[in-house]
Amino acid sequence: MVARMKRPAKLVKKIKMVEDSNTLDEVFTFEQLRQFSMRVFVYFGVPYQEAVLAADVLAYSDEHGIDSHGIARLKTYVDLLKAKRINPVPVIKMVRGKGSVATVDGDNGLGLVVGPKCMQLAIQKAKEHGSGWVSVCNTNHYGAAGYYPVMALKEDLIGLSMTNTTAGVVPFNGAEKMLGTNPVAIAFPGLKEPPVIIDFASSAVSYGKVEIAKRKGEMIPNGWCINKEGYATTDPAEMIEGGALLPLGDKEGSGHKGYCLASMVDILTAVLSGANWGPFAVPFAIHVSPANKQVGKGIGHFFGAWDIDGFRDKEEFKRNIDEWIRTMKATKVQPGRKQVLIPGDPEREAYQTRIKEGIPVNKEVVASLEAIAKYTGIDL
Amino acid sequence: MVARMKRPAKLVKKIKMVEDSNTLDEVFTFEQLRQFSMRVFVYFGVPYQEAVLAADVLAYSDEHGIDSHGIARLKTYVDLLKAKRINPVPVIKMVRGKGSVATVDGDNGLGLVVGPKCMQLAIQKAKEHGSGWVSVCNTNHYGAAGYYPVMALKEDLIGLSMTNTTAGVVPFNGAEKMLGTNPVAIAFPGLKEPPVIIDFASSAVSYGKVEIAKRKGEMIPNGWCINKEGYATTDPAEMIEGGALLPLGDKEGSGHKGYCLASMVDILTAVLSGANWGPFAVPFAIHVSPANKQVGKGIGHFFGAWDIDGFRDKEEFKRNIDEWIRTMKATKVQPGRKQVLIPGDPEREAYQTRIKEGIPVNKEVVASLEAIAKYTGIDL
Repeated sequence: MVARMKRPAKLVKKIKMVEDSNTLDEVFTFEQLRQFSMRVFVYFGVPYQEAVLAADVLAYSDEHGIDSHGIARLKTYVDLLKAKRINPVPVIKMVRGKGSVATVDGDNGLGLVVGPKCMQLAIQKAKEHGSGWVSVCNTNHYGAAGYYPVMALKEDLIGLSMTNTTAGVVPFNGAEKMLGTNPVAIAFPGLKEPPVIIDFASSAVSYGKVEIAKRKGEMIPNGWCINKEGYATTDPAEMIEGGALLPLGDKEGSGHKGYCLASMVDILTAVLSGANWGPFAVPFAIHVSPANKQVGKGIGHFFGAWDIDGFRDKEEFKRNIDEWIRTMKATKVQPGRKQVLIPGDPEREAYQTRIKEGIPVNKEVVASLEAIAKYTGIDL
Repeated sequence: MVARMKRPAKLVKKIKMVEDSNTLDEVFTFEQLRQFSMRVFVYFGVPYQEAVLAADVLAYSDEHGIDSHGIARLKTYVDLLKAKRINPVPVIKMVRGKGSVATVDGDNGLGLVVGPKCMQLAIQKAKEHGSGWVSVCNTNHYGAAGYYPVMALKEDLIGLSMTNTTAGVVPFNGAEKMLGTNPVAIAFPGLKEPPVIIDFASSAVSYGKVEIAKRKGEMIPNGWCINKEGYATTDPAEMIEGGALLPLGDKEGSGHKGYCLASMVDILTAVLSGANWGPFAVPFAIHVSPANKQVGKGIGHFFGAWDIDGFRDKEEFKRNIDEWIRTMKATKVQPGRKQVLIPGDPEREAYQTRIKEGIPVNKEVVASLEAIAKYTGIDL
């Protein structure tokens, strides 16, 4: 535990009550979490450069306040590497392609490694052909969807990413988990303003929000979940014990929209690439076995990039994005609401706080990291 | 009125009470509506071939049960053509491009003509480069978004279309109309099963649904609208008199998602092409003047196509889509619900009914067509 003891006193003082439980958070620096996860990946056989990449993807989440997709997931990656359900040394191969499009087989590698490499291929293709599209099969959980379009921003491209995930969501009118929370992320660069970074799941809410409500002993709003009999429920425990999440939208007129979005993501990521789609998606959890029936290889991702300059002078575009941002921010606010934000603002705000004050990590997550530290002998 | 008198007796008998009002619908054959709108477009100076195209786009809606986007809008197209706010003889020009991507200036033509031509360009590019992307400025309302991806299906491509529209929706937390109902449409071909055709607006519901509730004297669910002060309202009149639609999602955790979607569509269609974005989008209504400030030309569309064969053997893909469809349809149903549908099913069902029984047209819409018939001397 030497590394943790080296933390500046200022950070140690930040240990504080968290809103949603009576447990204490512990605070880590950016570098501590990055170093730890990188070294853990190396321990489990991931080559150094790829471990740095994987740690960077995880760090993106922790540093931007997306607590569900960062270091909190390290335990599951480790569990799956230990159980040899993820290949630490994949040979990632393009298996088909034509001009601006290609399909890649991730050789059952970490999504955190397969993902950035495939996004890089989409970026290269966009530079050459005006746009680039890579569908990926035989891959695993790739962290926060928003990481990938941000890669494209650095090259003055519009970036896009999607992934399918373990089924947890019902189709509209359905009572069985058939689709994942299947997120879509896309980002647009500004000139003086920060970029617009869109990243959202196609379910009404994440599983994480339901878990938090349960921990706090609170009810959840109608429209988030059903119980195992298929009835709407406001009791989070009922969802967790065999129920399911509902798609984005309400049952009075828009519930089909989240189902449409999730279907689009499922088909582009998994049917197009030859991965497991819908209910067959390989679960990202050690205690859940993959479905008996497999309809493809691993799960699927889909990456895209457009060269702005192929459509419009890129400086002009970015100046317009600045004006778009300022216009939206100036919107009159609903009574009782604080302000109109730009997609990406909450994550930027979290980053500004965390770079100064460190990353608060939930006590249960810290315990999982301590167990990994003990098993691997790597200091946390 | 000769044409209407020629309708088969069977169709005339179909005149019936409609659910949402005490007015009677009149029933027309597919051919009657197509012929009428085509001849009306020609009357207002649209060249014959382009008038046929525009009528085909409108007919797609009427024939598939999308009543809000078909012949019901003919009056507005006519009003805008009459007022010279739409150019009947546009010179549609590619103004920029690179490999798989291009920007087109629609020369203020009918969206119903500019749209299909630009989608065709995206299709050509996809055949050549694996994918094709066309952003369009200086255009107008293009009918139902779903028409365009269906064009791509015929060529074994995945098709996509988006458009921005007159602002009627608030950003998340906002109390002012800043974005349109900005739809997304995408379609995937099956082998023996019919295609998956996704087409939905990014607002919670359409303006049309609020209007219908008002006509029926019914309240609307919480979460659809706000009133002019920015407070949630369940009274449709309060929305119509200066209120606004809410984005897809609820305020308890997902309202930002519809805002994200609408933003994505607004930027890809209008900022990328150099059209009017957000609150500046040119209104599709004769009694609403364009905003004083213009930030681009016309409104914007965005079309895309991917060559399936560039990713995966296309027969294999389509067989998988068939399996995907059958799997989703076999989902256990929620108590009280009928079945799990595939996106596109409701429109296919409407088509099957209407091809036999004709298209029921609301009495108010019929009156608007009769006024056009009288003005132009074209038989309805």
